[in-house]
Amino acid sequence: MRAAVIYGAGDVRVENVPDPVVGGPGDALVDVTHSCICGSDLWPYGDMEPVDSGRRIGHEFIGRVRDVGPDVRTVHPGDMVVAPFRISCGTCEFCRAGLHTSCVKGGAWGYDTDGGQGEAVRVPLADGTLVRLPVESDDDRMASLLALSDVMGTGHHAALGAGVRTGGSVAVVGDGAVGLCAVIAAKRLGAERIIILGRHADRTNLAGEFGATDVVAARGEDAVHAVRELTGHGVDHVVEAVGTDDSWRTAMRIVRPGGRIGFVGVPHLDGGLPLRPLFVKNVGLGGGMAPARAYIDELLPDVLDGTIEPGRVFDRTIGLEEIPDGYRAMAGRDALKVMIHV
Amino acid sequence: MRAAVIYGAGDVRVENVPDPVVGGPGDALVDVTHSCICGSDLWPYGDMEPVDSGRRIGHEFIGRVRDVGPDVRTVHPGDMVVAPFRISCGTCEFCRAGLHTSCVKGGAWGYDTDGGQGEAVRVPLADGTLVRLPVESDDDRMASLLALSDVMGTGHHAALGAGVRTGGSVAVVGDGAVGLCAVIAAKRLGAERIIILGRHADRTNLAGEFGATDVVAARGEDAVHAVRELTGHGVDHVVEAVGTDDSWRTAMRIVRPGGRIGFVGVPHLDGGLPLRPLFVKNVGLGGGMAPARAYIDELLPDVLDGTIEPGRVFDRTIGLEEIPDGYRAMAGRDALKVMIHV
Repeated sequence: MRAAVIYGAGDVRVENVPDPVVGGPGDALVDVTHSCICGSDLWPYGDMEPVDSGRRIGHEFIGRVRDVGPDVRTVHPGDMVVAPFRISCGTCEFCRAGLHTSCVKGGAWGYDTDGGQGEAVRVPLADGTLVRLPVESDDDRMASLLALSDVMGTGHHAALGAGVRTGGSVAVVGDGAVGLCAVIAAKRLGAERIIILGRHADRTNLAGEFGATDVVAARGEDAVHAVRELTGHGVDHVVEAVGTDDSWRTAMRIVRPGGRIGFVGVPHLDGGLPLRPLFVKNVGLGGGMAPARAYIDELLPDVLDGTIEPGRVFDRTIGLEEIPDGYRAMAGRDALKVMIHV
Repeated sequence: MRAAVIYGAGDVRVENVPDPVVGGPGDALVDVTHSCICGSDLWPYGDMEPVDSGRRIGHEFIGRVRDVGPDVRTVHPGDMVVAPFRISCGTCEFCRAGLHTSCVKGGAWGYDTDGGQGEAVRVPLADGTLVRLPVESDDDRMASLLALSDVMGTGHHAALGAGVRTGGSVAVVGDGAVGLCAVIAAKRLGAERIIILGRHADRTNLAGEFGATDVVAARGEDAVHAVRELTGHGVDHVVEAVGTDDSWRTAMRIVRPGGRIGFVGVPHLDGGLPLRPLFVKNVGLGGGMAPARAYIDELLPDVLDGTIEPGRVFDRTIGLEEIPDGYRAMAGRDALKVMIHV
């Protein structure tokens, strides 16, 4: 079958790889119908050392179950399913606590397993990992359902980590797909004021349609000044959806004393995080790698009934062979988020 | 009058300073009866650059009101009062929210004001800052009441920042006075297992009397290993009561995925805090500079009825002229916490 393989920075290829098979009693074999490229895929695409033997990539997909091992109970051949961005057993103490990203048996796609950007995927721990979708593969809501595999759950996790609640003020640092989903999540959780920080008008316009009440189209000092102008002492809740020194510096300066920062941007700080500003302002942190699997149950009904439409973050759809173009487009900011229609 | 003045690292002197007076309508003039030396006083005592004109020091005291300005309503001449370690107005939005350390009018003792280690103190914003105590100056509970000015409130803040709740497991990194008060706070909040990390037997014994269930008398890797032996995946809640790279490294390794670190040790990291371990484990942070004023109302009844005895952290009492000896004793770890009986 065909699948994407990354060989180093800027080098993603679509190649022939071995056909997956059901290898263990808990496995499912899924024919992928929709996949996508993640902002976090751009980190290795930006800085991975070249290797001779590439590794599979992609961790968000929807597909149809072709086969299952004898122990699989919750999905069956023919079912449409969504896979969150981590593999999880569903039964260990962490999965039971809703922290599937710390599953003692699970792991990441594309390392010892298939990646999500390919024609088919062997899914280990299928009962704990996959969620059945009550739709057909041509459903209008497919893009939003696919967003449940990562970006919508991650945005929701950021909002929860920032402690967003009814009536609060929120600032979202980062106008990528996760930042925009955090706007949806903040609105859904009842935030009264939602400020999006971003300089791409098409993205901040979409944020407005998702519920952002204010746009700050600036960076650094200017952004801090603008948020202070809007809020006085800063916002109650900040979503940090980038992970760089700049974005953290901004986040720490626009959060109100006693506020919280929800962080979901994969940390890429040159040094560490300066603690003293958090100490002096009594600012809390929450977040991390989102347990997307845990949130699908909560968010799926809202996607199915159209209350939220996170799939609008996809602004380009490509075929499997065009994946290298998709990476170039996202890395060059020509595309916000790319869907792969397999 | 006589008061302590710091001139640089290792150089605290007791000197004649101007007698304080009621300077503004909201001031109170307090004759100090009891003060103490704080672990945080040891930071400037350890590294302050020498200066020609010293600054006053000390931020924890109890005393009797001698005089008040015409606007003061809540305390009266003759009242015994306790002062928390920050000055606060009690009426701004932050004070009303219980975050007196972010008071828009308040500040720190010893900079533009008197310090707490002296015969008397002019207290600005007296209504917002001082709390009346229903005791006489020779009360048996005086040490525990004095602990409300800082260490007990700070330990409580740490436990809250770590999210301690009924049935949880807690580890306290740091066997100083704040760490020991965090043990009291964790017990009071219903923690089931409380592990104190420390290598001073007299301190960890006291922690046991305060409610610690386990002692880990090790540092670094050995401490991490010991906590893992006791808890498997780590503890739900960690109190970081030191503020150094070593203590943070330990805290991040012994916290369970999905757990929280409550931090109240004044940050003195060489670099910043590595974020990736928090990200991967979904560990939250809470805490900072404790709003001790906010907690006095809640903790005072428990001190008055003897439910908690944080004053047991004082293991030496000195007179005002002996303050330089008191600093030496605390800096040299000969004393846990020194009370000054003025």
